Amino acid sequence: MKLSELGEFGLINRIAPLFLKNIDGKIKGIGDDCSVIPISEKESLLITTDMLIEDIHFLCNKISPEELGYKSLAVNLSDIAAMGGTPHSAFLSIGIPKNTEIAWLDEFFNGIKSLADETNTLLLGGDTTKSIDRLVINIVVVGKAESSKVKYRSTAKSGDVICVTENIGDSGGGLKLILEDRDDQDDSDVTGLIKAHHKPRPHIEEGKWLSAKESVNAMIDVSDGIDSDLKRILEQSHVGAKINLEDIPVSGVLKRICDIHNWNPYEIAAASGEDYCLLFTIEKDKHDETAELFKNEFKRPLYNIGEITGRENELNYFHKGSPVKFSKHGFDHFNQ
Amino acid sequence: MKLSELGEFGLINRIAPLFLKNIDGKIKGIGDDCSVIPISEKESLLITTDMLIEDIHFLCNKISPEELGYKSLAVNLSDIAAMGGTPHSAFLSIGIPKNTEIAWLDEFFNGIKSLADETNTLLLGGDTTKSIDRLVINIVVVGKAESSKVKYRSTAKSGDVICVTENIGDSGGGLKLILEDRDDQDDSDVTGLIKAHHKPRPHIEEGKWLSAKESVNAMIDVSDGIDSDLKRILEQSHVGAKINLEDIPVSGVLKRICDIHNWNPYEIAAASGEDYCLLFTIEKDKHDETAELFKNEFKRPLYNIGEITGRENELNYFHKGSPVKFSKHGFDHFNQ
Repeated sequence: MKLSELGEFGLINRIAPLFLKNIDGKIKGIGDDCSVIPISEKESLLITTDMLIEDIHFLCNKISPEELGYKSLAVNLSDIAAMGGTPHSAFLSIGIPKNTEIAWLDEFFNGIKSLADETNTLLLGGDTTKSIDRLVINIVVVGKAESSKVKYRSTAKSGDVICVTENIGDSGGGLKLILEDRDDQDDSDVTGLIKAHHKPRPHIEEGKWLSAKESVNAMIDVSDGIDSDLKRILEQSHVGAKINLEDIPVSGVLKRICDIHNWNPYEIAAASGEDYCLLFTIEKDKHDETAELFKNEFKRPLYNIGEITGRENELNYFHKGSPVKFSKHGFDHFNQ
Repeated sequence: MKLSELGEFGLINRIAPLFLKNIDGKIKGIGDDCSVIPISEKESLLITTDMLIEDIHFLCNKISPEELGYKSLAVNLSDIAAMGGTPHSAFLSIGIPKNTEIAWLDEFFNGIKSLADETNTLLLGGDTTKSIDRLVINIVVVGKAESSKVKYRSTAKSGDVICVTENIGDSGGGLKLILEDRDDQDDSDVTGLIKAHHKPRPHIEEGKWLSAKESVNAMIDVSDGIDSDLKRILEQSHVGAKINLEDIPVSGVLKRICDIHNWNPYEIAAASGEDYCLLFTIEKDKHDETAELFKNEFKRPLYNIGEITGRENELNYFHKGSPVKFSKHGFDHFNQ
């Protein structure tokens, strides 16, 4: 059998049991945004890693080196945010074609440095090596969290409200513009969406704030799209969900661009990824109070987009009360 | 300027100051086998990472998937050993061409699993993704050590004896056989050297044992060759060294293979890498006693191959008292 038949998640499900048996119950391994390793009575390490390969995850003629450095770190910081952690340090491995310009690399490292400084993350090590033809980037981020406050994917409860911490779909809209070569325009809407795709902001402060709320039951970052990411929560929590499409927060910019190209902004919002905001579930009776406090803290609303149900692994979409179906669901690396 | 002109170490020297300023003095960042992060009054985390790219670091038609998995983890464990740490957990990122056979991947993961089990290392997470054409492997290992016992590259002292914990050059001999297509033989000497190259044993127990000795001043693992690795100690410790070529321990197998092909075993031993034993410096008056204790503990000798001098960055080789020079010195990824 080829990997393309098994798929990314099939592979992970095949490997995970081999490595996870006999692990101390306090350690959390494969299957969440980060691994969690207790280091004292109260504190845990969070560790996450992401590999980005040229022509798979980015196109060097479409993203500036500064943006690529920034984004490579951002996607990892977002995993720390998703569990409520505070980033501590980062480790970069990079495979570089030997004709790469030093000026390009300087900009790339400046991009990492600017986000590292902004988030008090120390770049403490890594590995540099030659690559034959494509740039390969792997970043690991180590964070810390109070063990009792870490939020997992596996703890959503039937009846919880599902929320997101920011507009959804801008990054997916930006990617669509890039892939359809509609990115070369002097239009602030176009450049706004592309910036959302190239310089996503990890929601570290929001994650820490939410992790301190006992009523928040499960959390994940929106990396592969609401559809894929919510399914991970459903699978691990053994629950289902209903999403009200019209409640997914979509920016005015994305709506305007979708109008022009006759795209469905809600389909982009639900099925495309890389927004890197947070999706979480919260006990229904605490939602309103928490939303109010969130608004006071972050000067923007929390968005209630649906609810957790008892129907295991069933994810249903509604539009103004009527069920709807999508043609595209999520993102699996080996099946495309 | 192109990267090929600057070289790997030039790049690291260019980046490091950008990231290392303002770091708390107790944290050790870029520049040693691992980064060192104190996590309690007495204990530190050790973190290391290595990226392996197909056709740069390995040839899929020359190494079995089981060996590749084993070696990918071994090279990282060796960095933990080099600082005297105990491995705790590993994180694997892997970029896989989509036509890869699942059977191949199963063997690869078995290779990781066997060494992970042998060394009590938990595979706790990672990232799987598609790669266009070449396999890319990145492993991070997290270890722990008593902070006061961690050994660094920067603490060698003039007058120290330089030792290695195993024969040197078998791996380099194996690589030479592979690259010259002399590996396809039913000869136990040939297969022995190739196994040394494909399944190196990280010297974790030796590293822990040596780290408990106050008289051991500096330590590193032999990954790029004695010549390159010792130079890192010299550079960071601001000292020099004399190596007596005839004292480098060379296996009988390597000598026999070198006789057949008219190769110089001492040149292979000094200038080729990937032996993954340990090279360390120890106070002269403690050497004999420590060598005796090591022999009792590990049932083989420590090898005294030279001494640290006060001549900063000067590495000189001698053969039976006469100075010698090599044509090849070490290994720099971007200049080949």
